[in-house]
Amino acid sequence: MIRLSPPGYRRLEQARTFDVFVGGAELNTAVCLVRLGRSSAWVSRLTRNALGLIVANHVRETGVSTEHILWTDEDRVGLYFVEFGGAPRASSVVYDRRHSAMANLRPGMIDWPAVLAGTRWFHVTGITAALGQNVAETTREALQAAERAGVKVSIDLNYRAKLWSTEDACRWMGEFMKHCDVLITTEEDLERVFRIKGMTIEDAAADLETVAITLRENPLVWRNTWTGVAYHAGQLCRTRSYEVEIVDRLGAGDSFAAGLIHGLLDHDLQKGLDYGVAASALKHTVPGDFAWINRDDVEALLKGQGLRIVR
Amino acid sequence: MIRLSPPGYRRLEQARTFDVFVGGAELNTAVCLVRLGRSSAWVSRLTRNALGLIVANHVRETGVSTEHILWTDEDRVGLYFVEFGGAPRASSVVYDRRHSAMANLRPGMIDWPAVLAGTRWFHVTGITAALGQNVAETTREALQAAERAGVKVSIDLNYRAKLWSTEDACRWMGEFMKHCDVLITTEEDLERVFRIKGMTIEDAAADLETVAITLRENPLVWRNTWTGVAYHAGQLCRTRSYEVEIVDRLGAGDSFAAGLIHGLLDHDLQKGLDYGVAASALKHTVPGDFAWINRDDVEALLKGQGLRIVR
Amino acid sequence: MIRLSPPGYRRLEQARTFDVFVGGAELNTAVCLVRLGRSSAWVSRLTRNALGLIVANHVRETGVSTEHILWTDEDRVGLYFVEFGGAPRASSVVYDRRHSAMANLRPGMIDWPAVLAGTRWFHVTGITAALGQNVAETTREALQAAERAGVKVSIDLNYRAKLWSTEDACRWMGEFMKHCDVLITTEEDLERVFRIKGMTIEDAAADLETVAITLRENPLVWRNTWTGVAYHAGQLCRTRSYEVEIVDRLGAGDSFAAGLIHGLLDHDLQKGLDYGVAASALKHTVPGDFAWINRDDVEALLKGQGLRIVR
Amino acid sequence: MIRLSPPGYRRLEQARTFDVFVGGAELNTAVCLVRLGRSSAWVSRLTRNALGLIVANHVRETGVSTEHILWTDEDRVGLYFVEFGGAPRASSVVYDRRHSAMANLRPGMIDWPAVLAGTRWFHVTGITAALGQNVAETTREALQAAERAGVKVSIDLNYRAKLWSTEDACRWMGEFMKHCDVLITTEEDLERVFRIKGMTIEDAAADLETVAITLRENPLVWRNTWTGVAYHAGQLCRTRSYEVEIVDRLGAGDSFAAGLIHGLLDHDLQKGLDYGVAASALKHTVPGDFAWINRDDVEALLKGQGLRIVR
Amino acid sequence: MIRLSPPGYRRLEQARTFDVFVGGAELNTAVCLVRLGRSSAWVSRLTRNALGLIVANHVRETGVSTEHILWTDEDRVGLYFVEFGGAPRASSVVYDRRHSAMANLRPGMIDWPAVLAGTRWFHVTGITAALGQNVAETTREALQAAERAGVKVSIDLNYRAKLWSTEDACRWMGEFMKHCDVLITTEEDLERVFRIKGMTIEDAAADLETVAITLRENPLVWRNTWTGVAYHAGQLCRTRSYEVEIVDRLGAGDSFAAGLIHGLLDHDLQKGLDYGVAASALKHTVPGDFAWINRDDVEALLKGQGLRIVR
Amino acid sequence: MIRLSPPGYRRLEQARTFDVFVGGAELNTAVCLVRLGRSSAWVSRLTRNALGLIVANHVRETGVSTEHILWTDEDRVGLYFVEFGGAPRASSVVYDRRHSAMANLRPGMIDWPAVLAGTRWFHVTGITAALGQNVAETTREALQAAERAGVKVSIDLNYRAKLWSTEDACRWMGEFMKHCDVLITTEEDLERVFRIKGMTIEDAAADLETVAITLRENPLVWRNTWTGVAYHAGQLCRTRSYEVEIVDRLGAGDSFAAGLIHGLLDHDLQKGLDYGVAASALKHTVPGDFAWINRDDVEALLKGQGLRIVR
Repeated sequence: MIRLSPPGYRRLEQARTFDVFVGGAELNTAVCLVRLGRSSAWVSRLTRNALGLIVANHVRETGVSTEHILWTDEDRVGLYFVEFGGAPRASSVVYDRRHSAMANLRPGMIDWPAVLAGTRWFHVTGITAALGQNVAETTREALQAAERAGVKVSIDLNYRAKLWSTEDACRWMGEFMKHCDVLITTEEDLERVFRIKGMTIEDAAADLETVAITLRENPLVWRNTWTGVAYHAGQLCRTRSYEVEIVDRLGAGDSFAAGLIHGLLDHDLQKGLDYGVAASALKHTVPGDFAWINRDDVEALLKGQGLRIVR
Repeated sequence: MIRLSPPGYRRLEQARTFDVFVGGAELNTAVCLVRLGRSSAWVSRLTRNALGLIVANHVRETGVSTEHILWTDEDRVGLYFVEFGGAPRASSVVYDRRHSAMANLRPGMIDWPAVLAGTRWFHVTGITAALGQNVAETTREALQAAERAGVKVSIDLNYRAKLWSTEDACRWMGEFMKHCDVLITTEEDLERVFRIKGMTIEDAAADLETVAITLRENPLVWRNTWTGVAYHAGQLCRTRSYEVEIVDRLGAGDSFAAGLIHGLLDHDLQKGLDYGVAASALKHTVPGDFAWINRDDVEALLKGQGLRIVR
Repeated sequence: MIRLSPPGYRRLEQARTFDVFVGGAELNTAVCLVRLGRSSAWVSRLTRNALGLIVANHVRETGVSTEHILWTDEDRVGLYFVEFGGAPRASSVVYDRRHSAMANLRPGMIDWPAVLAGTRWFHVTGITAALGQNVAETTREALQAAERAGVKVSIDLNYRAKLWSTEDACRWMGEFMKHCDVLITTEEDLERVFRIKGMTIEDAAADLETVAITLRENPLVWRNTWTGVAYHAGQLCRTRSYEVEIVDRLGAGDSFAAGLIHGLLDHDLQKGLDYGVAASALKHTVPGDFAWINRDDVEALLKGQGLRIVR
Repeated sequence: MIRLSPPGYRRLEQARTFDVFVGGAELNTAVCLVRLGRSSAWVSRLTRNALGLIVANHVRETGVSTEHILWTDEDRVGLYFVEFGGAPRASSVVYDRRHSAMANLRPGMIDWPAVLAGTRWFHVTGITAALGQNVAETTREALQAAERAGVKVSIDLNYRAKLWSTEDACRWMGEFMKHCDVLITTEEDLERVFRIKGMTIEDAAADLETVAITLRENPLVWRNTWTGVAYHAGQLCRTRSYEVEIVDRLGAGDSFAAGLIHGLLDHDLQKGLDYGVAASALKHTVPGDFAWINRDDVEALLKGQGLRIVR
Repeated sequence: MIRLSPPGYRRLEQARTFDVFVGGAELNTAVCLVRLGRSSAWVSRLTRNALGLIVANHVRETGVSTEHILWTDEDRVGLYFVEFGGAPRASSVVYDRRHSAMANLRPGMIDWPAVLAGTRWFHVTGITAALGQNVAETTREALQAAERAGVKVSIDLNYRAKLWSTEDACRWMGEFMKHCDVLITTEEDLERVFRIKGMTIEDAAADLETVAITLRENPLVWRNTWTGVAYHAGQLCRTRSYEVEIVDRLGAGDSFAAGLIHGLLDHDLQKGLDYGVAASALKHTVPGDFAWINRDDVEALLKGQGLRIVR
Repeated sequence: MIRLSPPGYRRLEQARTFDVFVGGAELNTAVCLVRLGRSSAWVSRLTRNALGLIVANHVRETGVSTEHILWTDEDRVGLYFVEFGGAPRASSVVYDRRHSAMANLRPGMIDWPAVLAGTRWFHVTGITAALGQNVAETTREALQAAERAGVKVSIDLNYRAKLWSTEDACRWMGEFMKHCDVLITTEEDLERVFRIKGMTIEDAAADLETVAITLRENPLVWRNTWTGVAYHAGQLCRTRSYEVEIVDRLGAGDSFAAGLIHGLLDHDLQKGLDYGVAASALKHTVPGDFAWINRDDVEALLKGQGLRIVR
């Protein structure tokens, strides 16, 4: 999607200019994985016009492969509009992604075995499924293909109230989780989607290899505390907390997923959790959805680099 | 519609910021009429979200009445993207207005007799009808209501190849013209739409009270020559030509329509033509679709004010 | 007034660009009332040049009526320059409003009975009176007319040391309060203007129906705590406190007045206080003097909406 | 003065940002003289606030001496607003300089003998005198002091219809010319101010050592032809013509004056005329009132440097 | 190199912001080839810091392969500063590329046979050789490797007076041309570098398969006429002329080279010349060094698309 | 040096525009001294091109004398790139100052007795010496000249790990301190450079008249606590602490030095410490390296002015 946001904490109504970024939940994860030194590709469907080219160019700029983008002359390019707030005004999003090429994706359009060939990991989020029945079905198709191909699968619950109901989310996510190895979510979303009062990470982990959760305390809009926990094989891992000064928190959860996958690809959950929380803590300070960070930044943070100017 | 364009002659693909304007063919005419001292209202259908509010705010800022906007919680707000060129690269538009609230307007939604009560003039363009069968039918509904109410009607042919075929345009425009008093167009569009090789203004004027045509010679993108002619009751009127240095020519034709209507409301075709060409010549120099000019500017130009700094 | 401020916390001396906003104490209140769903009009005197048109356009954009603006070809349009600071540097204002059309307003220029016809509330602030003896006299004229017309009157003390002395403020405000129903102020201003050490809200309320006070704790420039209290018929009402992250606090007090009036028009002081503090807490996060908020935003805040992204 | 102009050919009414420059007729000449390698000082009166400091800082940045600025805590800093047009819309200026510190300058405030000590040339323009009777009288005081001190004096007629009538201009300019050595003007201003139909440069030169005139042909706003002529001791000098692509023509005439004075200080009228026209041709391409050019640029142009990229 | 230029025709001295682009002669050609549908890679040496990453990111965004970039922790990233002029002020460049990683490239650093494997064409320019003796020697090394590998070679003379003398240029270019198939240049450079008065394209073509020349007539800075001619096997080809309105002409010659190579890869000199001139005519209208155009744009232009808005 | 930084917390890799400032350790101190009412001059070596002129213009704008700048046609102008972070991402600097005119300064180039004539104070920092052996030797030459001329000398340790090793710093700083009266530093640098674990301010002050230290607690990037202490003649002075909201902390230490020198010139260490900490606390809120503050701002802060808007 193309993301448009007015600068300087202007409300959308006040916009006389928009900053242009590109983002999307799975894409953000793919970008952060490349920044951490992994290779990755983004699978999507895009309309072949100037807006679609903007998306592909920004993706290519990061080093994420664009070879699996399915181009079409139909439909439109999804947009979303963000306004940044300050306490007590929360930031807010207006989606304009209905009728997009991605929202019109249908089973059979993508040759999943070809896409997954040679791949070790497949990541998807609940936002994609929320775009419509057809996309949810295509997601299921992908997950089944991944399962068959022996590719590890992670899914980020990522519930969006503006896109679907908790009922739909619960039904589809429940089904997806049967094909997944790793679930990424927040305590709040767990409870909201599965409508189990006080649902715990342990409950969620019953059928899954690993469940990872990010914990955000947000006393203010410009400053949060940020931590991660994960549950695997009956054990709970946890990371240090970060005080984050927030420039742009969109995509932070997606960067957490990237760090987590990065560690899990090395079969090291604690590493995944540590890289995930550090990468996403840094992401909060970077404008746009993408984590324009480097592995060196993450590792310096993990080694305890302080807040003085680096010079 | 909200109009988004990258600054500094950047191509859409290069956009990292967009300038935000609001525009639309009939709206631009309504705005220019207010600037010339008339009162006017804009009839449209808008989605009630931050983008819809942007549109309404910009309209209200100009002084055009927003009382006849039909608000809905459905659909989306139409967008269009413009990139500004220089010779030999023409400026170019990408429309993203399908599924907009306006594109989903249907007959019966607007209470035309109420809208037209107390009104002396109704203006519509071919772009609106091009949005879809349902909007074309609603346009016909409006024209019939205007006819019944004794309100004068002008229509601007405004053919857009990206929106409909010449066949559809020809069929609908032919029908609309039966209910119209004034047709506004260009020689090129006349020929394209009515597919009569060498169709003349006289041919077009057969069934109409008045036909007005703008003539653009564009040896370059940043500089054009601009004139208007009109045919009425067997007579051809013509204006002086203007050399225009072009900042933003979108909406220029719509400002011509406003000037023309301004004169015709005073039953003075030559005045209409003169004001129309002068107002639209000035519009070429103003960023955005709206003619941020005043009647004083138009009248000073008509009186021969030169190009020295006014100080 | 037109408000000019350099972006990015630049000091005025560093300004190479200015952001352009429009603001003014009573105008800001009128704007916020419209945003809360009331209709309102702004009474002022403006010079008819491009700067005056900027002011009127911005007012019209918000939906506040401009029908009572008194246009003149004389005088000038008032300006003020703001620079935004960070602790320990306070934000600062340079006024350039002497000789403005408003500063030259004299009794008799405005037909108050006509302006007040059909109105339920009249609001004015001490800043207006501070512009000069003639404007203070015109304010008195307006207050007397309102009293005669049975229109409720609120006055915001709004003491500005750069505009007048505490002696003048005390004398005029004392006189105005005889014609007022509601006084809005801060503890600090009460004490400064009436020079009664430890003057309390109860003292001030002796002759008035209602006194409302905003309480700001500002340990820092970018973060304050914000509350409101009011005293009416021997009783003290109070609101919850808001932690505010400050983008632009100019006009916050004026938005408080709007929320208060909104409640009082419904004969509900607690509602007024709650809406006033919530609306003005939100205003702190919006660039410019105007509260570009909606009633929905205020009500969501009052219902306890948190700081997570709305999506 | 501080000069405020909206970017991108926006009209003043459309301004949401202003670019900030500093300019003033005599100041612009002083700046260009420094750029040509001369030392110069600017004599003015300024209010000591952030706006006054902006003016002084910009002057100091160019290298013009600020030692003769008379600082006051009263009055205000003059402003002017410019909008840039394109044919057929001329650029336009709104002055807001009444009640400025300079407009309130009175005879006796400046110690002219001290200011003029060690100076070879004094330059003034008709704009200054147009600010009011008191400033005109102070100008006369300065001219008399210069005459007594044996300092050469040039005056630029610079008629501004928005500041004074042709009658006042004629009376005062006639008086000033008695104390001047060099008159700089345009054919159009000569005729307008002295109300002699067909007044020629020779007529004007009757009482003066030298008269210099710039000739502008402006078929368009963005492109002019620019030449200079001068009359001295019965002889007419002339320069080559320049085709100028206009970024910002404000201050061009003042740069012509600087080049002319530069040559006359070397007792070489042809040099002055050549440098004047070349410097001011270059000025047309530089944003702001000041000629940010170097002597090398002027000399390269005089030697025939072409329009290819210098690399 | 990173290219920094102040916006809005500001002179470098006036810069308070710089626009950031990436460019370089061979890189620009590689970019335009990708835009025309070919695959290409850029061979260079870059310092591994944030500036080097900017360069690589921008290259990757276009689709040009970055796999042959030689990264180093030493040296610096080359910069150049551009100011854009208007007649009579030419645009101008300040180079700051000494001591760059590329300027310190030495023979043996790049494994040319590996780089050239599978490649059909190698393109280099005189600017590279002008960086120093060591780079010139590395260029010779590359040309010899290309010759051995049977890869076609084109060289663009591209003489830069700020980088080397005509003597050095003549000596090295003479040597390079022995290993080249195609020479691209201008009449002016031919004469300047080879110091043969009246040297013709036929003279230059004596030892080469093909010589192509771009012809620029620049009566003004913002408007030029642009044509191309080529000489091959005793025959002279020529293209139509384009009137170009110039936004940014840097990189235009490099885009010509791309179009030419595009045609020659299809063994069609006339096609190469036509695509080269059309692509570079379009490049004049695009900000930055890169030709953000598509093959469709070029082909529409070649088919005679006019200057009306495409909508 | 010219300082380039992307706006809006963008990382350097994301830069599409750079804000342009000028800064340098000693220069920043000179600027702040002028703002406090002292006269000062900056001694440096600069390349005579557009970039060098930018530096000199910005210096002149502040009122610091440029008469002792040594201009050369060789070498280059030093640059540095800054990106601004938020917790947990520290701000970061990329230097590009090798081969600059200043880095190539050698003993004998500057006539120190002439420069120092009439001067009461000479200030230098460790950054200058870190540029290379030749600059360190020139620094020693200057210190010896100052000692001979009876000019007081202060040195700011200012250790930069990206410029030299702690070994080199220790050796040279040890030597410089023999010629100094005042050392300015931080506890952290004291320990890092002199490699004495737990080195105290008292140890450092053994051979020096005065040692002053700034203490920064930075729990976050956007908010620090800032204090100063000094040791003189066996006594420890200390200032109040300031909570600072940080816009741009570069140059804050240099402004501390200016305030300190300002007091010491009046033989009042406590005044120096108080002005130093207040001036530098304010500097944290001002964009760019320079302290665009006035003595009035500092004195209002010292007198306890709060954080309310000054109006």
